[in-house]
Amino acid sequence: MSYKIAVLGVTGVVGREMLKCLEEYKIDCDVKGLASARSVGKSIDFCGGRIIVEEACESSFDGMDFVLGAVENDMAKRFAPAIVKSGAVFIDNSSAFRYDDDVPLVVPEINGADAFKHHGIVANPNCVTIITLMAVAALAKISAIKSMVASSYQAVSGAGQQGIDELVQQESALISGEAVTPSKFPAQIVRNAIPFIGSYKDNGYSSEEMKLQTEGRKILHLPELLVSCTCVRVPVMRSHSIAATVVTERKISVEEAKKAIAAFPNVSLIDDANKINERDYPTPIDVTDKDDVYVGRIREDLTNPNGLCLWCCGDQIRKGAAANAVQILKFLIGQ
Amino acid sequence: MSYKIAVLGVTGVVGREMLKCLEEYKIDCDVKGLASARSVGKSIDFCGGRIIVEEACESSFDGMDFVLGAVENDMAKRFAPAIVKSGAVFIDNSSAFRYDDDVPLVVPEINGADAFKHHGIVANPNCVTIITLMAVAALAKISAIKSMVASSYQAVSGAGQQGIDELVQQESALISGEAVTPSKFPAQIVRNAIPFIGSYKDNGYSSEEMKLQTEGRKILHLPELLVSCTCVRVPVMRSHSIAATVVTERKISVEEAKKAIAAFPNVSLIDDANKINERDYPTPIDVTDKDDVYVGRIREDLTNPNGLCLWCCGDQIRKGAAANAVQILKFLIGQ
Repeated sequence: MSYKIAVLGVTGVVGREMLKCLEEYKIDCDVKGLASARSVGKSIDFCGGRIIVEEACESSFDGMDFVLGAVENDMAKRFAPAIVKSGAVFIDNSSAFRYDDDVPLVVPEINGADAFKHHGIVANPNCVTIITLMAVAALAKISAIKSMVASSYQAVSGAGQQGIDELVQQESALISGEAVTPSKFPAQIVRNAIPFIGSYKDNGYSSEEMKLQTEGRKILHLPELLVSCTCVRVPVMRSHSIAATVVTERKISVEEAKKAIAAFPNVSLIDDANKINERDYPTPIDVTDKDDVYVGRIREDLTNPNGLCLWCCGDQIRKGAAANAVQILKFLIGQ
Repeated sequence: MSYKIAVLGVTGVVGREMLKCLEEYKIDCDVKGLASARSVGKSIDFCGGRIIVEEACESSFDGMDFVLGAVENDMAKRFAPAIVKSGAVFIDNSSAFRYDDDVPLVVPEINGADAFKHHGIVANPNCVTIITLMAVAALAKISAIKSMVASSYQAVSGAGQQGIDELVQQESALISGEAVTPSKFPAQIVRNAIPFIGSYKDNGYSSEEMKLQTEGRKILHLPELLVSCTCVRVPVMRSHSIAATVVTERKISVEEAKKAIAAFPNVSLIDDANKINERDYPTPIDVTDKDDVYVGRIREDLTNPNGLCLWCCGDQIRKGAAANAVQILKFLIGQ
């Protein structure tokens, strides 16, 4: 059977990558590319042919089986009622519906079954959440996760094409001795690290930082999970890294953790016996354009006998966004 | 009184910065510049005049009051006996003597009094240790630190001139489309993050990661302090940042912590009332060429009622190395 799939926000970084995933995963489909008025008529390569971008409007979704959403919250909210009314399933990458009780928030390898409880909308989690939980979910199978302290090293692609362009532009400016003027990011990003992403919450955390706890609770089915997160933007192109210290109900040894992580689907354990590019830990560049999450540096937490420290890397645009959304679709159609 | 001071390793990044600190702090001194044979005859600007580099040998230290060491462990070990025999005080930036019982390990603002207990050698701590402890010591005054989870974002300058050159060279290669070949670092550093610095310890931590616990115990006089650290090299030029989660014996509120940090010498609190470059958190670029450590993002640890999260930045070459060493000298001469 061939599916009718609309990609909403098809001209953005995540939208284009969704097309690549549909193609690579060999989803049998007809695709409609939707975007705002200013992109109408653009053509995008897809499966040997071309998609001509159409303007998204309330009637765009009639007859669709799925809508993959790669737009900001405001657009996701605007179009959700029309999508649901059309009978299509809306797999939405924005955070607009992630915390709604009747919207499943899904990483297929972790809580794929939740996806079937949808009422027209399935939410795709935040990129740091997906990448961190892919590393941590294997441990959760052995013993419940009680708490987590995480620090992120987030790529500029998390801010979309403008973020990517800003790093490239600032690199050139630096080399040619020109002034570096931040625009998308709140400070210079080349040769810098910016410890704030999103907006402030009442508790002093950023909106980005709170997602790992809020979304982690829902995805892992652990309503009391505690997470302290520091989200930092670094001059890396498109893969996020997270240094996480995870405390479990009962002690998990390093060997036990490695075994569980190596056995988890779509996670690659990296250590002295399983190297990547001749190194025994992953770096962001090693994992670019890959769908797996790579986990290394697994060691005992020296501050807590039930804790483990680890380092995980994943491509933000792939597993952190587009690939996970298309994997939800695959899961729903039973592939 | 004018002091006779030798700088051992004067041609390196830290050695040159030590000269700048001696000049800026107006230390009344005659300076001898020492390095290996291949640098002999080079001249370095100092206080309006010039220092001609001499080859370091066992007799170089006769008549000196202080020797500032900016060399690797092997050279520090080789020359230490001659320095001590000469009667000079050796303020050493290497890690060769940091853990010796009769060698004080000193951050003047934290444990300056320890410096006077020397037997010819005072050790300058690791850069991440200095910068993190400057942020944390203010809290330790209120309640003992029990444990700490820290993730670093370390500048290339921590690997010396070769580290700096490698980032600049890789930035240019990237722009001109040439291949990027790592040499000083174990992986490409431009647009990447490398989660390993130093060598492996038996527990899976890197030597760099264990320093924060081992040195922190000695400097804070807390022999049971527990620290889990992840040290990561990022494409930043010369300021280190650390995301730290600190657990204290009794609860310290965010307001209490801010007050204590703001009152601590040579630490700058950054928040909505005390901005830096119009932002309410510091970034590495903001603190370059400054001696203060800048602390922001202070908030409650959501995983532990007695915990606090914070973000600190400091210039690795200044407070992380050269400035702290010259400040130890200043402290010893009572200025």
